[in-house]
Formats: sequence, C-alpha cells, structure tokens
Amino acid sequence: MRAGDLTTPALLADAGVLAHNVATMSAQRPGPALRPHVKAFKCTALAGRLAGAGHTGFCCATVREVEGMAAAGLGADLLLANEVLDARRLGALVATDTARVTVAVDSPETIAAAAAGGVGEVLIDVDVGMPRCGCDPVDAGRLADEARVAGLMVRGVMGYEGHLMHDPKADRRAAAVADAMAILAAAHAEVGGDVVSGGGTGSWDSNRLVTELQAGSYVLMDGDYARMGLPFREGLVLLTTAVSVSNRGWAALDGGLKALAMDSGDPVLVGDGEVLFCSDEHTTVTGSFTVGERVGLRPAHIDPTIAKHDTIHLVDDVSAGADAEVLESWPVDLRGW
Amino acid sequence: MRAGDLTTPALLADAGVLAHNVATMSAQRPGPALRPHVKAFKCTALAGRLAGAGHTGFCCATVREVEGMAAAGLGADLLLANEVLDARRLGALVATDTARVTVAVDSPETIAAAAAGGVGEVLIDVDVGMPRCGCDPVDAGRLADEARVAGLMVRGVMGYEGHLMHDPKADRRAAAVADAMAILAAAHAEVGGDVVSGGGTGSWDSNRLVTELQAGSYVLMDGDYARMGLPFREGLVLLTTAVSVSNRGWAALDGGLKALAMDSGDPVLVGDGEVLFCSDEHTTVTGSFTVGERVGLRPAHIDPTIAKHDTIHLVDDVSAGADAEVLESWPVDLRGW
Repeated sequence: MRAGDLTTPALLADAGVLAHNVATMSAQRPGPALRPHVKAFKCTALAGRLAGAGHTGFCCATVREVEGMAAAGLGADLLLANEVLDARRLGALVATDTARVTVAVDSPETIAAAAAGGVGEVLIDVDVGMPRCGCDPVDAGRLADEARVAGLMVRGVMGYEGHLMHDPKADRRAAAVADAMAILAAAHAEVGGDVVSGGGTGSWDSNRLVTELQAGSYVLMDGDYARMGLPFREGLVLLTTAVSVSNRGWAALDGGLKALAMDSGDPVLVGDGEVLFCSDEHTTVTGSFTVGERVGLRPAHIDPTIAKHDTIHLVDDVSAGADAEVLESWPVDLRGW
Repeated sequence: MRAGDLTTPALLADAGVLAHNVATMSAQRPGPALRPHVKAFKCTALAGRLAGAGHTGFCCATVREVEGMAAAGLGADLLLANEVLDARRLGALVATDTARVTVAVDSPETIAAAAAGGVGEVLIDVDVGMPRCGCDPVDAGRLADEARVAGLMVRGVMGYEGHLMHDPKADRRAAAVADAMAILAAAHAEVGGDVVSGGGTGSWDSNRLVTELQAGSYVLMDGDYARMGLPFREGLVLLTTAVSVSNRGWAALDGGLKALAMDSGDPVLVGDGEVLFCSDEHTTVTGSFTVGERVGLRPAHIDPTIAKHDTIHLVDDVSAGADAEVLESWPVDLRGW
C-alpha cells in the first residue's frame, strides 16, 4: 500500500530515519545504558524495535503506559518515572509476575502509596532544578530511609534536568547539565542503590552521571530538538490532503490542531509555502497546490502529536509523500491514563 | 461514585451548566434552527441530549463523526461541513439507509468526489471572508449548476464566518457578521435551495441570515468565548491530583498538555494560585496544596481538549471537585478520522 491510499490526516514515520536514530543512540548508550521513554511514542510495536536493539528496560510516564508495556511482553524492567498517589493498578501488575515495576517517589505520601499499592521497588526522585517533581535534595537520604522502613527496595535515584534540554548552545548546555547532575550525585551518595536515572534527548552525550538515560524524543525527533544540531533526524510527518484551494492564495489541508500538538507552535510545511494557521481540522497554508494533492506537515512537538492518533504508519521514505510505501501500521496503544 | 474516585486526569462536565447552555441556545434557536456541531464534543451520548432538546440535525467536521453519529441512531440529517476528496465511506453509509448525509463542496473536484462516492446531497460552501474553505462567492451559482449536472441535489449554501467569532465587542462583531452574511445571501440567491447554514457560538444571536446555526462550543463553553460576555457558562474541568509539592513554592498536577489543548494557551487553575507551565503529563502551579489533593484546571479550548480523552464524566456540580457526584460516564466515541 502507498501512503496516498491512507485516509488523511495520517501519521507517517520514516523507517530509515528511525533506524538511523536508534543506531546512533545505541552506539552512545548501548543496552541498559539507555532506558527509552515510551511517553514519546506510546506504541508497543515501536518499543519492541528498541528492545530488539538491546534496550529492554523502559521508562513510562503513566500507569496506562506501564500496563500496556507489560501486556505487550515488554515488562522486564519498567520504571514509572512519575509520582502516583494510587499504586494499586501497578501493584496488581506486579502480583501477576508479568512485569518488574519501579516507581518514583518524592514524599512520605508517595512512599506510603507505593507500599500500600504493592509496588516493591522505588527510586527517590530528586529536584535537580526543574520546577516540577522531585524532593529537596537534602531530603533524599531521609526519604530513602523511610522507604526502606516501609518495606520498599530503594534501587537508587532519579533526577530530570528537563529545564536544560533545549538550550541550543552545546557547551553551555553541557555545563548546566553537569551542575544539575552534581546535585543528583550528592543525593545518590545519601540514598544508595545501583540506579542513577535521568537525562533525555537533549543531554544524550553530555550527561555523564546517569547509569541509564531516559530519552524518547530522539526516536523520531522533535522540531524543537532538531534546531540544536543533534545527530538525530526528524522522521515524523502528518500527511494531509489539500481539500480546498482559494484563488486568494491559500489552501486548506485536512489536518489541524486535533491532529497536531500546538504547545510548541505551528507545524512546518514540507515543500514550498508557509503555514498561516491551524483550525480544529484544517491547516491553512500559502503555496501552490491542487485540490486533492497530498501535503506533509512536520509537527513541532512529536510526543503529544502522536498521542492524538490511533495509528503510526511506518513508511520506506517519508519524503516521498503519497508515493511512500507503507511497511507497517502500528497501533498507538499506550494512550490514556 | 464521587469524582475523587476517578483515575486522574479525568474530564468532568457539569450537568447543570450543560442543561443551562442547551436551554439558553434552544430558546434562541429552537429545533432545526440549530444544527449542533458535534466536533465540539465528539460524543454521541451528549449529542443524544441535544436531540432530546429538539435538535435532530447535526453538523460534523470529519467522516468519522458522520459514521459514528449514524451508528448511534442520530443520522436523521447529518451535514459534513467540510470538503472531502474521497466520499466513498459517506456513500456506503447512505446506501445502508441509516443516515441522511449532506456534504459541503466548493470545487469541481469535491463535486466529482461526492457524485463518485454516492453522496446525493450537497451544500455549496462559500468563502465569506475566513481564509480556509469555501468557493469564491462569484463561483457559487456555477458550482451549483455543475453539481446538479452531476446528479446531486443542491440543498443550499454554507458559509462560516469563523474569523469574526471571537471579537469581544458585540456591536462590531454583529456588524461584521452581517457583512459576511450579505455575501452568503447573494451566493444563496444564485445557488437556490432551502438551507443557509453557518454561524457558531460567537454569532448565536447576531447571525440573522442562516436557517440553521452550526454551534457546538456553547454546550460546555470555551474560555476564549467565555470572555465575550455570552450567556453560556463554562462547564468543563480537568480534575487532576497534586502528585508533588515543593517547598520552593510550586506543586505538580498529574494532567498536562496531553490532557489539555494548548492552542489557545495555558489552562486556568480552579481556586487560588497560578499555572506556571504545562509539560506532557504535568501542570506546574503556584499555590498552597497538599500531596494527593484533587485540583481542577479549566482548559482554554474545549474542542481539542475533549478530543484527547476517551471519557467525559458528567457530574452534578463541577465546582465541588473531588466531592462531585458522577452521574454518567460518556465515551468520547467520535475521535479519529
């Protein structure tokens, strides 16, 4: 089947780009040195490709992702890199012996939830500067003690330097990452355990501390990240159809903000022309198009774009547009909560 | 069940607000004078409420919405207010006799697609000033003739003045709507037919031309529209849990930009405090919270927010937060394309 035979809007992923990105990251961080973050793509078929490349421990952002990965037989070592107050679904999963589950904790309440829910293993999540989750670094050791008293195995620490990921200056970014990781190293010394988990696509080569890098976006690559000169290539395109062409100089494509994440701005048109704006089900573009022509859009942020779709179509060459061959169609099966 | 028993993030709709909004609109535009736009909520259970209020003709933005409405027994008069180049799925639906389907056309190509696909009824979509779909007004009569030659029944015209919907000054908005509708009236004179379809929540009382208003957002009301002083109330809240609270002055809620549309900006916190930013699965807020506390967020744009969820939970009083009673849980069953 050709991409042009798909109902539009359709999400296309380039098989060659995917293979290049996976190989590039695996060379830097082989096997368990990478814990791919499934939140980036929410697709067990794609996760299976990464497992095939040797990365068998995965990072998840939601309970649903953990459940889906276990159901797909990819539950060898699943980290929920997020705090939960109700760990009963995770504990039920552990009880089935289909998955090893570790959950992040950063407070007495999340420790109590892990213990009550039946999750036996935790990481102490440490605030390394990003205003989101993670305990005060000075509390890390005390929380680890509390977790052990509650009967939990403390595997180590986690700290996500997400606020530093998008600095386009590589040397400044590396220096800031090193500072953040010094905080995590100090906390680790208090906490103990084998695991130091953190980082992401933006610190793929500069984060020298973590034993496992939590990267996901590199697989198909964000427009945001792509501007930083990293060696990963953009591999995701929304294929649309020009459903209306105006003699006033624009065309309306049949994919809009329900098919494209807008938090990082408008998509970029593949080919000549410019995006004027996105509506719910349309993107209005300038340029020369004919009615019925297939037109590609590159989303600014891939993670939430994929989460708007139920299928990723793997194609041989995304730049071929409608003529690309569809190799596989993968369900986006880890959506929801 | 209480809202606090739901897995978060969870989308709550206020039953009282919904009833108020539906009644307010029905008083202005009773029965067939309103063609509710299901794109706003993508939920046949909610559409069933509107049918119960007398509005049995519906407006859709995607083929999937048309199919889903027909499958739910709500296919008495479905308008796909959008251009399609492949009408075969619509034609297959018509052939089952479960739905009356009308599709918008604005070019020889979309007329040919409707005829080839087996959709027998069309509206001529006219550009009334918004840079998106619709033919040049001077071409409307010629296209209607072409459609009739192709064997299609031309029910009338459609023109969406979406670029005028959000002007906060009511008199200026009304004047601009009148100008846009004068264009549509002239086209209608050339086209013929009984139907003049257009408008939306923002022109609910100022659009004096259309025989049927295509409004949807009014049902649960956007933040954007809410600033315009319309009589519809905001009825949608994302219920989240504070999963992490920092002594540096913020809390992380477990709903982020995968649960909230971001095209119209950040959500608004229900209660004291401010939204700092949204990540994929978190919103970081200022304010005084305890770990585990349920916190509400009002999305800026409801249409694409609902499209990120698989369920809308109807509650008795959304302002009660975790204590609200869940009356019904409705599948968001019209997602996808």
